[in-house]
Amino acid sequence: FTGDIHAIGAANNLLAAMLEAHLLHGNKLGIDPLTITWRRCVDMNDRALRQIVVGLGGRANGYVRETGFDITAASEVMAIVAVARDLFDLRRRLGAITVAYTWDGEPVTAEQLQAAGSMAVLLKDALKPNLVQTLEGQPAFLHCGPFANIAHGNNSLVADLVGLKLGDYVVTESGFGSDMGMEKFLDIVCRIGGLSPSAIVLVTTVRALKHHGDDPDGGVEAVERGGENLKRHLGIVSEFGLKAVVAVNRFPDDPDEEVDAVRNLALEYGAHAAELNEAFERGGEGAAALAEAVVDAADQPASFDYIYPLEAPIDAKIEAVCKRVYGADEVTFLKPAQEKIEQFTANGLDRLPICMAKTHLSLSHDPTLLNAPTGFTVPIRDVRAYTGAGWLVPLLGDMQTMPGLGKTPAAFNVDIDENGRTVGLF
Amino acid sequence: FTGDIHAIGAANNLLAAMLEAHLLHGNKLGIDPLTITWRRCVDMNDRALRQIVVGLGGRANGYVRETGFDITAASEVMAIVAVARDLFDLRRRLGAITVAYTWDGEPVTAEQLQAAGSMAVLLKDALKPNLVQTLEGQPAFLHCGPFANIAHGNNSLVADLVGLKLGDYVVTESGFGSDMGMEKFLDIVCRIGGLSPSAIVLVTTVRALKHHGDDPDGGVEAVERGGENLKRHLGIVSEFGLKAVVAVNRFPDDPDEEVDAVRNLALEYGAHAAELNEAFERGGEGAAALAEAVVDAADQPASFDYIYPLEAPIDAKIEAVCKRVYGADEVTFLKPAQEKIEQFTANGLDRLPICMAKTHLSLSHDPTLLNAPTGFTVPIRDVRAYTGAGWLVPLLGDMQTMPGLGKTPAAFNVDIDENGRTVGLF
Amino acid sequence: FTGDIHAIGAANNLLAAMLEAHLLHGNKLGIDPLTITWRRCVDMNDRALRQIVVGLGGRANGYVRETGFDITAASEVMAIVAVARDLFDLRRRLGAITVAYTWDGEPVTAEQLQAAGSMAVLLKDALKPNLVQTLEGQPAFLHCGPFANIAHGNNSLVADLVGLKLGDYVVTESGFGSDMGMEKFLDIVCRIGGLSPSAIVLVTTVRALKHHGDDPDGGVEAVERGGENLKRHLGIVSEFGLKAVVAVNRFPDDPDEEVDAVRNLALEYGAHAAELNEAFERGGEGAAALAEAVVDAADQPASFDYIYPLEAPIDAKIEAVCKRVYGADEVTFLKPAQEKIEQFTANGLDRLPICMAKTHLSLSHDPTLLNAPTGFTVPIRDVRAYTGAGWLVPLLGDMQTMPGLGKTPAAFNVDIDENGRTVGLF
Amino acid sequence: FTGDIHAIGAANNLLAAMLEAHLLHGNKLGIDPLTITWRRCVDMNDRALRQIVVGLGGRANGYVRETGFDITAASEVMAIVAVARDLFDLRRRLGAITVAYTWDGEPVTAEQLQAAGSMAVLLKDALKPNLVQTLEGQPAFLHCGPFANIAHGNNSLVADLVGLKLGDYVVTESGFGSDMGMEKFLDIVCRIGGLSPSAIVLVTTVRALKHHGDDPDGGVEAVERGGENLKRHLGIVSEFGLKAVVAVNRFPDDPDEEVDAVRNLALEYGAHAAELNEAFERGGEGAAALAEAVVDAADQPASFDYIYPLEAPIDAKIEAVCKRVYGADEVTFLKPAQEKIEQFTANGLDRLPICMAKTHLSLSHDPTLLNAPTGFTVPIRDVRAYTGAGWLVPLLGDMQTMPGLGKTPAAFNVDIDENGRTVGLF
Repeated sequence: FTGDIHAIGAANNLLAAMLEAHLLHGNKLGIDPLTITWRRCVDMNDRALRQIVVGLGGRANGYVRETGFDITAASEVMAIVAVARDLFDLRRRLGAITVAYTWDGEPVTAEQLQAAGSMAVLLKDALKPNLVQTLEGQPAFLHCGPFANIAHGNNSLVADLVGLKLGDYVVTESGFGSDMGMEKFLDIVCRIGGLSPSAIVLVTTVRALKHHGDDPDGGVEAVERGGENLKRHLGIVSEFGLKAVVAVNRFPDDPDEEVDAVRNLALEYGAHAAELNEAFERGGEGAAALAEAVVDAADQPASFDYIYPLEAPIDAKIEAVCKRVYGADEVTFLKPAQEKIEQFTANGLDRLPICMAKTHLSLSHDPTLLNAPTGFTVPIRDVRAYTGAGWLVPLLGDMQTMPGLGKTPAAFNVDIDENGRTVGLF
Repeated sequence: FTGDIHAIGAANNLLAAMLEAHLLHGNKLGIDPLTITWRRCVDMNDRALRQIVVGLGGRANGYVRETGFDITAASEVMAIVAVARDLFDLRRRLGAITVAYTWDGEPVTAEQLQAAGSMAVLLKDALKPNLVQTLEGQPAFLHCGPFANIAHGNNSLVADLVGLKLGDYVVTESGFGSDMGMEKFLDIVCRIGGLSPSAIVLVTTVRALKHHGDDPDGGVEAVERGGENLKRHLGIVSEFGLKAVVAVNRFPDDPDEEVDAVRNLALEYGAHAAELNEAFERGGEGAAALAEAVVDAADQPASFDYIYPLEAPIDAKIEAVCKRVYGADEVTFLKPAQEKIEQFTANGLDRLPICMAKTHLSLSHDPTLLNAPTGFTVPIRDVRAYTGAGWLVPLLGDMQTMPGLGKTPAAFNVDIDENGRTVGLF
Repeated sequence: FTGDIHAIGAANNLLAAMLEAHLLHGNKLGIDPLTITWRRCVDMNDRALRQIVVGLGGRANGYVRETGFDITAASEVMAIVAVARDLFDLRRRLGAITVAYTWDGEPVTAEQLQAAGSMAVLLKDALKPNLVQTLEGQPAFLHCGPFANIAHGNNSLVADLVGLKLGDYVVTESGFGSDMGMEKFLDIVCRIGGLSPSAIVLVTTVRALKHHGDDPDGGVEAVERGGENLKRHLGIVSEFGLKAVVAVNRFPDDPDEEVDAVRNLALEYGAHAAELNEAFERGGEGAAALAEAVVDAADQPASFDYIYPLEAPIDAKIEAVCKRVYGADEVTFLKPAQEKIEQFTANGLDRLPICMAKTHLSLSHDPTLLNAPTGFTVPIRDVRAYTGAGWLVPLLGDMQTMPGLGKTPAAFNVDIDENGRTVGLF
Repeated sequence: FTGDIHAIGAANNLLAAMLEAHLLHGNKLGIDPLTITWRRCVDMNDRALRQIVVGLGGRANGYVRETGFDITAASEVMAIVAVARDLFDLRRRLGAITVAYTWDGEPVTAEQLQAAGSMAVLLKDALKPNLVQTLEGQPAFLHCGPFANIAHGNNSLVADLVGLKLGDYVVTESGFGSDMGMEKFLDIVCRIGGLSPSAIVLVTTVRALKHHGDDPDGGVEAVERGGENLKRHLGIVSEFGLKAVVAVNRFPDDPDEEVDAVRNLALEYGAHAAELNEAFERGGEGAAALAEAVVDAADQPASFDYIYPLEAPIDAKIEAVCKRVYGADEVTFLKPAQEKIEQFTANGLDRLPICMAKTHLSLSHDPTLLNAPTGFTVPIRDVRAYTGAGWLVPLLGDMQTMPGLGKTPAAFNVDIDENGRTVGLF
């Protein structure tokens, strides 16, 4: 809503256009077109753009290449804005983006294409956190939108750092489950930013547990079956050596007995505390007990540690996350993934952290496996190097970095009414 | 700078994505993919996107099609925002966009794809004119950016109408020369908006005339040779039955004798007045004489008329502009253009005005013909129907709706300096 | 029917595959992929192959390029087999084929790609003329199949030369009308082979003249109207300084009065003689009078000359054929054609003869203009250099080098019957 | 060398062109373009054609689709010619080819496209076996060339049946090892043709065993190490209940001790006999002992049985071949393969035999695993249904149906010498 995402898209696509222009106007750097990994992006679910051929129609349109678009949230530029410490760090990281390799196998960066300066200027304003206020007037930062399935899924580091200067306690949101945004916050952002979290707030709902219990209309038994999922998330928090407070987001018509069931399960499975969040209905008042519990948890001693050391080989780091976080039995690396791991290791990129691209619909890589799956093998299809953001992105299973529209897109219902008011957004 | 152009790009691309989704999910409307004319857009000079193949990689990515991107300024959505009278007119025009034809030859609109409502909501804020102030504090509207070569090249109609309510005199800017933005303002915008202009301000510089005189470093003789170009522009203004005030934008080191030569030529060739504009150096004060002259011209009786009546056949309207405005001897319609003219006439679109896509570097269609070319034949390559904006777009010569980056893009020089300040923009 | 055309296709496609392999395995010659003009071929009317993208799917499949297939009859290899004097000349011409240009603008030949030797070996047997016999036992050569619209349209030079050694009179067939195969035989083959024809046999039918008279079911008047077409063909023969014998191929049910009308028109319009050819019905006997007339014509003194000298500039040669043979008023060269003419002239290819790619359905470039069109302008869309065959190929109008199948391909009717006999071929 | 392969290519590509024409001219059958599996073919190693986009350039060129070429030897048409019993069976099988599916999921056949009749006529002569003679004058049939890695790899059934009528003993050649051509001959051809073989001749060389012993320049120890490979092939023959005679093709400079080592290993590992084949050096005489051994083996009682029953589910049949023939531990079916198996089972194609597309360079699917690999898992990438030939084709590992040219194609050396003689073929 602030133009940040458009600035990010523009910077991403400027780099792409400058790369094509470089190829057309003599290719002085000796870039091998088949090695180009930099893709364009657009802020739209447009499956037709996933895999395209550009440059058709003769010399005026440049060289023909196979490439594609990602959704802007998956762009490395989005990631860089989210982890850059300041404008200079942003500028440096943009320059460090690898877009391709030369005929001799050397990486080609945005710096070499003379694109990083312009990109930084396009992103100058986008780097500043956006201050908003709640309905009750409390200030909050809303900044950056990398999705936690296809990207690293966290608020910007700048916003976190500013928050730490200004507040007593900083609560930062990580996308999706503890296997997604939280794992990436702890293993990536905390490392890059030198942060050490005091405690984890694990958000759940009655509805979510029923979904994992495979009976959305069920009662307490469904909640209990789905409790296995909650148990696993609590276990993931423990793996990091942290304490978890479970926040039960209450919907107005959730029955007391089901809400109580969730709280009891949470405590049974090792949560430090489990409180209702009734803020939607009752405002700040409704979350006061939760806040007290979080403060209490934060005051406990913690023994935070990462899931993997940076020094581990790339495949070992990937396996650590798959097994210790997702609960996989095995990991298989398909051929393109194997080749990339060898290449990145040879290029000295093996000390980077890992940022999984995985479905958020399951603890596993397979969106159809609900609740607490076990006994599965995770296939690593490919690996990308985000040398600007500073991590490696393994693609798990069929994970795509560009979503598509369904048969009945939400847009069907959005319109203006006879008074010019927007309808159909919810 | 306000997010308007991004909203326009998003609305354009939402329609494209919904069209692909419609094709993939059963194609209930019976759209013939080979008839699709709706293209995506991006706010970037990216020649590689002019002609592309999308949907590669199997069913998950949809049907394979040949299509392309235009620069956002050339999008019909940009045109619609610029000519819509209000939100309801905007909504209606968006719905009237033709994106393709069915197997039976019927047009398919954005309305039928259920996309127009969402598009209108995306554009709700972009429709509102942006109020800015000059360095001296005068208010001005800056709103919409359709380029006058590939689009209709004028400020929004909403801004003009608001201006007319608020001010004594409204000066609106049209892009490029009198053959480009001015012709389109008079033949299209004035017709749609029911406007009748009082006088024309024709802007020129010493440098421009030397360029047309083919001797950028020449003196008064170069200016006089290039005066032929000024003469032609004054003639175009006369064709519309209006009086012209020539404004000579003075650069600080333009010699007096050259500036005087321009003024004298202007008066000799029939200008109502010719005054210096020294506002860049001297502020509002420097343009006061010019302003007086414009007021005086606006008070003269005018006999404004269009170059062509809407009732004329499509080819006659195109020929009228080519001959009476550009000074062409002949017009030839290539086969795709002929076929489109027949089809559009059959579809009842022959009463629409004409919005040429022509190079702005020459009065002709050929960018290499400087000054006042004569004896040329204009080739009409193709014609597009903007049924939402409400006009037809002939493509002249090699005119592209997507520019490309050159060997040394301006972006090479843009960067931040050691203090984080932007450098290299100028 | 002899495998010749398959050998030609294989040689053509071997060169293409070796070119792609060269690009993939390091591109030592420095070929600019955007300059590649060598296309693949297939002996099938397959419009979908006219314009394709190859090499999709990653490095294993090579570099992505835009290219296409021609029908084998349009391959330069077919042309080379048809004009080569012997195996060594064939080998040399194959090596001289230009497939692309380097980054520095130098032509790249089949020789440089080390492909010409293998191609020659593939074509060794195809170079030998095929001796067949008529139903009455006379020997005849059938050799090579370049179509006269998209290629040079004549029997092989080897067959002609062998015939001249063996026979008293050699009758060689040129495809389509005197504007097509005959013009190319006289201006190209006779020059290359040092041949000087004694007379021309111009073949016509009652049906053809009625078609040009625009009344297929008409009578003598229709024939007389269509006689204008015959008159023009006789005029073309005269332009070359030769005498024409008109052969009227008689269909069994052609009425005498119509057949007589054709003969009378022919004589009126300057034919040396005009005789019936009733060989289809009466065997050799039915063509005896015609043969006598041809012998008589061949004994007359002739003043054979070409339509253009090789020393004329490329555009002048093209204009000479368009005006003196086709009867055009003007010739316009579209931009790609202009650029190629400049380039070929700079490369020293301006002394080559011209081999038009033109529709055979009209004397003009426009297949809808029947009979004897006048007052038309021929557009030259592009020019190709066949440096192996030794000529330049201008593309006229919409002429394609790959035909397509219609809605009801002839193949629908072809099948085997219950006895295994082929049916539906006629 | 007889035009057979060209006729097969032409028939294959006629079907493709008729399919495109059907789509363009109204698509009456309602074919969903995304379901088209029929590919074109060419008799050339041309990797760039593996994955292509056709139909670019607008309506005149048809609908844009992603498709590709296979080498002609991999065409289903080649397979059909090789297994058809006679012309009528050929005609029926051609009609039964599945090229695509309708929007409603029904298969679309060559019959429905009215292409099978013309295809049969094109193939009429190709169906007849080609009789050749050896240097010593013995007659032999050479007929059809499906490669045993990407196709079923055997001489035509017609040639086998004619041979059985004419000879006392028929020796038919199967391509590559016992895991490739032999398995397919026994499981597919014997079933289709009702044949029951008497014995197997397993051909080997000293060089082959050294290659598998991973020491091409080694001595007897290398041969013995590579003997593990021979042992496995003998085991495969046993699995079919047949006796094997090992033929050791002797090269002139193979040392006696190494040749003896091979024979001893063969007998040790269970061969019925092991004899030298010195025919290359000594003519028919040199293979006489081998022939006697084969006659003796053929006279022994045999208990021939297939590796899988047709009634087994598709995946079970594939697993049977992978485990019992290739020696795999496990088989994994990738998603496209799983989906095809479900679809084919639903379509009633589960009773068809299996024709693997597997590398011939290893007993496994992985060309780098020499000798007698164990402990491997075979990935099934995809499955194709050859409903005309009458079998299913699983694609194993990275197996391609179109080979590519290497850095130094054999064609580099082929040429004619100064006497016009071909050089460089060997």
